[in-house]
Amino acid sequence: MATIEEHRAAVESRINQWCGSLPKGELYAPMEYLLRLPAKRVRPIATLMACELMGAEADRAIDAALGIELFHNFTLMHDDIMDASPTRRGRPTVHVRWGQNLAILSGDALLVKAYQCMGADARALAVFNSCALQVCEGQELDMAFERAASITAEQYMHMIRRKTAVLLACALEVGAIIGGASPGQQQAIARFGEQLGLAFQLRDDHIDAFGDPAVSGKQRGGDLRAGKKTWLLIRGLELERACGGGTLTKAMGQMSIAREVSDMVEALIALGVRDESEALIRGMETEALAALDSVDVPAERRAPLRALAMGLMGRTS
Amino acid sequence: MATIEEHRAAVESRINQWCGSLPKGELYAPMEYLLRLPAKRVRPIATLMACELMGAEADRAIDAALGIELFHNFTLMHDDIMDASPTRRGRPTVHVRWGQNLAILSGDALLVKAYQCMGADARALAVFNSCALQVCEGQELDMAFERAASITAEQYMHMIRRKTAVLLACALEVGAIIGGASPGQQQAIARFGEQLGLAFQLRDDHIDAFGDPAVSGKQRGGDLRAGKKTWLLIRGLELERACGGGTLTKAMGQMSIAREVSDMVEALIALGVRDESEALIRGMETEALAALDSVDVPAERRAPLRALAMGLMGRTS
Repeated sequence: MATIEEHRAAVESRINQWCGSLPKGELYAPMEYLLRLPAKRVRPIATLMACELMGAEADRAIDAALGIELFHNFTLMHDDIMDASPTRRGRPTVHVRWGQNLAILSGDALLVKAYQCMGADARALAVFNSCALQVCEGQELDMAFERAASITAEQYMHMIRRKTAVLLACALEVGAIIGGASPGQQQAIARFGEQLGLAFQLRDDHIDAFGDPAVSGKQRGGDLRAGKKTWLLIRGLELERACGGGTLTKAMGQMSIAREVSDMVEALIALGVRDESEALIRGMETEALAALDSVDVPAERRAPLRALAMGLMGRTS
Repeated sequence: MATIEEHRAAVESRINQWCGSLPKGELYAPMEYLLRLPAKRVRPIATLMACELMGAEADRAIDAALGIELFHNFTLMHDDIMDASPTRRGRPTVHVRWGQNLAILSGDALLVKAYQCMGADARALAVFNSCALQVCEGQELDMAFERAASITAEQYMHMIRRKTAVLLACALEVGAIIGGASPGQQQAIARFGEQLGLAFQLRDDHIDAFGDPAVSGKQRGGDLRAGKKTWLLIRGLELERACGGGTLTKAMGQMSIAREVSDMVEALIALGVRDESEALIRGMETEALAALDSVDVPAERRAPLRALAMGLMGRTS
């Protein structure tokens, strides 16, 4: 079985080869531009690992892994239009560089390319189709929530599961199916991916608010200052609504420049949101690992995915 | 074998059923809205007929036929954004009614839905993927041509083949594959669809300029007045460029309200473009019918597709 770094190299090499095979022209240039931005490639690596988990050669799943990464980049290209994002990883977004129409069209063609790579395995396609629809549903909810006056923590979890966790689950499922997984094994690996994906997203938001800037390398509370509707803020606002408002509610009525991040962090701690978030994430991480352990393959084959998960959880043991 | 009207009823019934099965919510409402606009359903009917051409039950191809129609509607939803079209069939376009972001996202989800209906036949998927990419390429060229100072008739044909003819070919190919076509039969039916699709598009433009308004039911020269870059206008301008300009070149420099349609029609006739267009279309129609005749199945099985083609050609015999 290959290491994470070996899988990453295989993915990068396949992406390189794919970019090189694209026809010239304005329709395809934005695809290459986006695919060549530095990225962690967690999802396609997960696809390769899930294939190996089943005892098959990772290479059998390399095209499906590419398809997952192309799909992810398709969502980035279109989400950036919808969110009117000017930059991605410090570079102009596709719609800024090539115009909105080409960003729509090149994204459409990228989705087709993703299908082209996915192949014609009926079970893999069924998972991929269902995932793709849920990702669209998640983005729709995300946009609706931005306009909504108040949403509940439960609604947020429903959205974020579709928008982000489902694709990690799909990446793993597709790899496992190609590797020869039984329906039971497929279900267990899907559960692993979904819980891990949710935990990763929530952990990321948790660290933004409560992490040590020296460790995370990011300024603390960027999300809070921007008023970004993370689980933390939504849960905090939900709790404040029950008692007629508070620090967070007031902060949301202010311009971002006027928001006092340290007050907001203190309010979240006082409301018990930090502890609740920590417990929630831990619970999901535990469930993810339990789901992985329930995949009935020799334990040593589960080790690489366990290591990947631990890395995403920021744990060493 | 069923009549065109029976196939149309089957397609409408399947679309109805599909619309009824959609989840509630803003992501899916635009799909139903667009699918329920009155339409001729030529492509899905062609899919069913191509399946029957191979001696199989049309019903085997009904989901693929739906997939073709969903794909067509996906292109309409996104093209309307790119072309900033306010209305479609007299009703507000999706982006006007629901906003641009939802039109992008609902279109994306509609493309996924099209794939869901297409199933997992490797040959059918390969044809569909290739077609979908070519349609995107055609739309890209179409947008580029709108900005271009001058394009050639050859470039135009290259674009229109991708943007419109390829999808009719795909609709037929997919139906034939599901019906059990050999690669040779598939190739012949694809040729039939491509030539028929091209001829139909060119005939439509031809009638706009030279048809009898009493027969066509449309005011003559609407495309010419709008300066729409049809094959006729592009070929006329190309011929005028060779002799340093002329009536059409001058007309294109004017506001549409100032354009004299009758002068433009006369100029096209004087340049020989009417005769050239007529010969071009006739040639394609002849080639389409010859391609259909070359599909080695009993002649009586070809009759319905021949009738469909004759109808699209505006011929009775």
